[in-house]
Amino acid sequence: MANFKGHALPGSFFLVFGLWWSVKYPLMYLSRRGNHRPNKCHQRLELIEGIVKAVFSLIGILAEQFVPDGPHMHLMNGEEHSWVKLMNWQHSTMYLFYGLSGLVDILTYFSLNVPRGLDRLSLGLAVFIEGLLFYYHVHNRPPLDQHIHSLLLIAIFGGSISIMIEVFLRDHIVLELFRSSLTILQGTWFWQIGFVLYPPGGGAEWDQKDHDNVMFITMCFCWHYVVALLIMGTNYFLVYCCLRKRKGLSGDGSIGIHKLNSNKTEARAALLAESEEE
Amino acid sequence: MANFKGHALPGSFFLVFGLWWSVKYPLMYLSRRGNHRPNKCHQRLELIEGIVKAVFSLIGILAEQFVPDGPHMHLMNGEEHSWVKLMNWQHSTMYLFYGLSGLVDILTYFSLNVPRGLDRLSLGLAVFIEGLLFYYHVHNRPPLDQHIHSLLLIAIFGGSISIMIEVFLRDHIVLELFRSSLTILQGTWFWQIGFVLYPPGGGAEWDQKDHDNVMFITMCFCWHYVVALLIMGTNYFLVYCCLRKRKGLSGDGSIGIHKLNSNKTEARAALLAESEEE
Amino acid sequence: MANFKGHALPGSFFLVFGLWWSVKYPLMYLSRRGNHRPNKCHQRLELIEGIVKAVFSLIGILAEQFVPDGPHMHLMNGEEHSWVKLMNWQHSTMYLFYGLSGLVDILTYFSLNVPRGLDRLSLGLAVFIEGLLFYYHVHNRPPLDQHIHSLLLIAIFGGSISIMIEVFLRDHIVLELFRSSLTILQGTWFWQIGFVLYPPGGGAEWDQKDHDNVMFITMCFCWHYVVALLIMGTNYFLVYCCLRKRKGLSGDGSIGIHKLNSNKTEARAALLAESEEE
Amino acid sequence: MANFKGHALPGSFFLVFGLWWSVKYPLMYLSRRGNHRPNKCHQRLELIEGIVKAVFSLIGILAEQFVPDGPHMHLMNGEEHSWVKLMNWQHSTMYLFYGLSGLVDILTYFSLNVPRGLDRLSLGLAVFIEGLLFYYHVHNRPPLDQHIHSLLLIAIFGGSISIMIEVFLRDHIVLELFRSSLTILQGTWFWQIGFVLYPPGGGAEWDQKDHDNVMFITMCFCWHYVVALLIMGTNYFLVYCCLRKRKGLSGDGSIGIHKLNSNKTEARAALLAESEEE
Repeated sequence: MANFKGHALPGSFFLVFGLWWSVKYPLMYLSRRGNHRPNKCHQRLELIEGIVKAVFSLIGILAEQFVPDGPHMHLMNGEEHSWVKLMNWQHSTMYLFYGLSGLVDILTYFSLNVPRGLDRLSLGLAVFIEGLLFYYHVHNRPPLDQHIHSLLLIAIFGGSISIMIEVFLRDHIVLELFRSSLTILQGTWFWQIGFVLYPPGGGAEWDQKDHDNVMFITMCFCWHYVVALLIMGTNYFLVYCCLRKRKGLSGDGSIGIHKLNSNKTEARAALLAESEEE
Repeated sequence: MANFKGHALPGSFFLVFGLWWSVKYPLMYLSRRGNHRPNKCHQRLELIEGIVKAVFSLIGILAEQFVPDGPHMHLMNGEEHSWVKLMNWQHSTMYLFYGLSGLVDILTYFSLNVPRGLDRLSLGLAVFIEGLLFYYHVHNRPPLDQHIHSLLLIAIFGGSISIMIEVFLRDHIVLELFRSSLTILQGTWFWQIGFVLYPPGGGAEWDQKDHDNVMFITMCFCWHYVVALLIMGTNYFLVYCCLRKRKGLSGDGSIGIHKLNSNKTEARAALLAESEEE
Repeated sequence: MANFKGHALPGSFFLVFGLWWSVKYPLMYLSRRGNHRPNKCHQRLELIEGIVKAVFSLIGILAEQFVPDGPHMHLMNGEEHSWVKLMNWQHSTMYLFYGLSGLVDILTYFSLNVPRGLDRLSLGLAVFIEGLLFYYHVHNRPPLDQHIHSLLLIAIFGGSISIMIEVFLRDHIVLELFRSSLTILQGTWFWQIGFVLYPPGGGAEWDQKDHDNVMFITMCFCWHYVVALLIMGTNYFLVYCCLRKRKGLSGDGSIGIHKLNSNKTEARAALLAESEEE
Repeated sequence: MANFKGHALPGSFFLVFGLWWSVKYPLMYLSRRGNHRPNKCHQRLELIEGIVKAVFSLIGILAEQFVPDGPHMHLMNGEEHSWVKLMNWQHSTMYLFYGLSGLVDILTYFSLNVPRGLDRLSLGLAVFIEGLLFYYHVHNRPPLDQHIHSLLLIAIFGGSISIMIEVFLRDHIVLELFRSSLTILQGTWFWQIGFVLYPPGGGAEWDQKDHDNVMFITMCFCWHYVVALLIMGTNYFLVYCCLRKRKGLSGDGSIGIHKLNSNKTEARAALLAESEEE
């Protein structure tokens, strides 16, 4: 759906996930104490996340297919041998891969034999496929349209690479925060694209060939990221304060000392814990 | 051989390997229990794989050279000082590198002094060289032809990078599954290229300049990958069921607990096993 | 500020940091003895570095905004609906991200709960954003102008990648020296750009379309890097001599033996130290 | 020197190093037994290598500067304000970075405080700078000339990436063999470029615009690499046989078992050895 709603919908999905992650990962990072083992509560969260991801994808696919001017599941026009509404089909395909990623999350919860890291790989692939389809589907458009989508590609491929690294470096808080910030960026940028290319409520059209507009949009993209980073920082701080309050007296010290005993300690503790258990 | 058979042949080779790997790697992953050491049976499989790879390559080279309109091992036309059937020669070169990779596999089995990881490097190189030759040999073709081959390049270079990482992270199940899925994708995509560019049985020609066809092909590539992923999932599930049946009663529990004691445990167990042995 | 001063200002900032790092990192590397733990003095240095970074960024932003022909914080010209001085705004944005990086450094010092590696990520992002904005803002310029900026991009993106690796491989002396050398290179190259594009003091103009000038500039970039490497080497040597003098007699031997017991030893020592402490 | 000799000279340098490495690294790999510590003999080899590298670079610089039609150290023509023989100056710059790399090797031997990995970084940089200068200096040339040089870039940048990885994964035999093979490839390809662009002894000129020639050259590049791989294999086998003979009876068994106790064992052994020593 090349209109405002068609950009606001995925934008909202990404925003929901980005904001949720910007709370979840600091929470998990600050609340664990050398205890890397996924606990029940955490696993249930992952399950819910997977289900939400799958539901969002289904909504996306249905919206793309059954809007009034959608393809209604017809791929080919029999009489003229032409393709029907390929744009909507491409968007459906993007959602499909996110749905698959949600499915892998759900399977990871129920069957314990899904290899560790496959959930990250499937998410990374979903993001990559999104980038791939966007890359090829903005040809023959005005300069501003192309540029605004190519900036989106930076957030997409950056996110994809970051998630792929998580296959090997799981539970790395910096990677998780980076992924969250890029997801928020994608979310707000989809909204921005909607506002620029399809100004709602009869707003003024943008001159899509003006070089100044292209320059402004580049800068605007950076500002969106600044905002995303500020949101991340605020959420991190709020989570920290909440946890500190709940822990009462001992909170400050034990959290404070946490950073000094950095990653290595955590890894060692996890290894020891595993050894003892057997 | 720029015709249907010339694409169906390598497509079948890749499909055979992709499907085989999609069974082999889950089998190895699910059946080993903290036992990383390559056993006899596994080594023999690698040997057979190497031989099959070498034989396939030889078939490929011979087919390219000795089809009726092939170069029959002539590289230069003496009279006119012009090159003879360079396409077939390029394809032969691609097969040659896969043959070398098979040879390294065989040598790895017989001589124990081939450094670990060299088999992966030689496979990764073979895939890279395939990509390199494809990259340069689709110039001056219609847009659809170029596009359909450039999509192939994504599968090829993606596979090459993944295999190169395996040089350093050997026996990583996620990488192995990823490689398998990309190999299946390559296989089915070669068949797709054959059907689109050289419709067999007098099928309708595709308009190679229609932008809609280009858009459809991009999406079709993604669908091929969805199918490849579904095949992978099915095979993984079948292997899991087979193993569970064979193990009888204890199967469920011991397999189930496997995932929790993840990679680290396996690595530690392997180290301990090696220490005890000495 | 597309003039000489607008290039000399960031050039000086980068030079100050590059030269400082070329002293700081050898000093820290040569003076630590299997003691990886960040000590008080080192942490205070990081704090000062963060403050200086933030102050430099503020100076940069103010200079870009409030020079006589600057935008004075106006983004849009109300009457003509056109953007005001986008160049200056873009430069301000670049400085803004370096300011954020400085802020993260400061927060890392005061709150102990900022995850390790976030300071490197934020610095890497600042460098990447600088590269992104430069990449898009040299379109429609003469060949020499484009070329001289695209060479700058090599230093920028090289630095960004190197800093991103530091997120995972912290305190790796080779990465730190590499980063220092690229920062010096950026500093001197900004000055070079200023001299070539806006010759001060009525110097002769460069013919911006002459291919020979383009070739010379490429080579000149390499020479700048040679100079940066020589500066690095000299500073490393001076630091080594100073430390040796201060340590007196025992200096030579204990420093000399340092290299043989390389990275692995250090890592092991750090681990042991951490274990003992608890 | 854009003539046959100007390509044969660096080609010979690379060939000498590639062939030497294809003997040295198998020798070191096969002869060490869990003993990672650099011994005296090995360190002396590195010194000699560094000196040879520096001498070759000096020869290259002098040859480029003082051939009859060279610049004789003049950079600028005072009267016409034009650059003098920029090609030769660019080639000199390439040699200069290899000279620096040689210098770092020498310093590593004499001073024990050069950080480990710096020698690899400086070599990787030298290769990268070579690629950078080649990348920019084949503009405005006939298609075949551009193509034959861009193939060279694959070998150059592939080698550079591989050497950069060695900064972090030192003494990794697969990386070292890969580097050796790419160096041989560079060597033979320089000779090939010389033969194609400047046929010596009045050979027939190549039609530089013929697409068939471009296709053949691509394939020819792959064949060069096959030859490089075969040379590597032969040398590896010869070294293995020599070592086996020298070790007499016990040779076969102890070498044979080497591969099974792979990287992990070696690393562990090295760690233990280091611990015991202290």
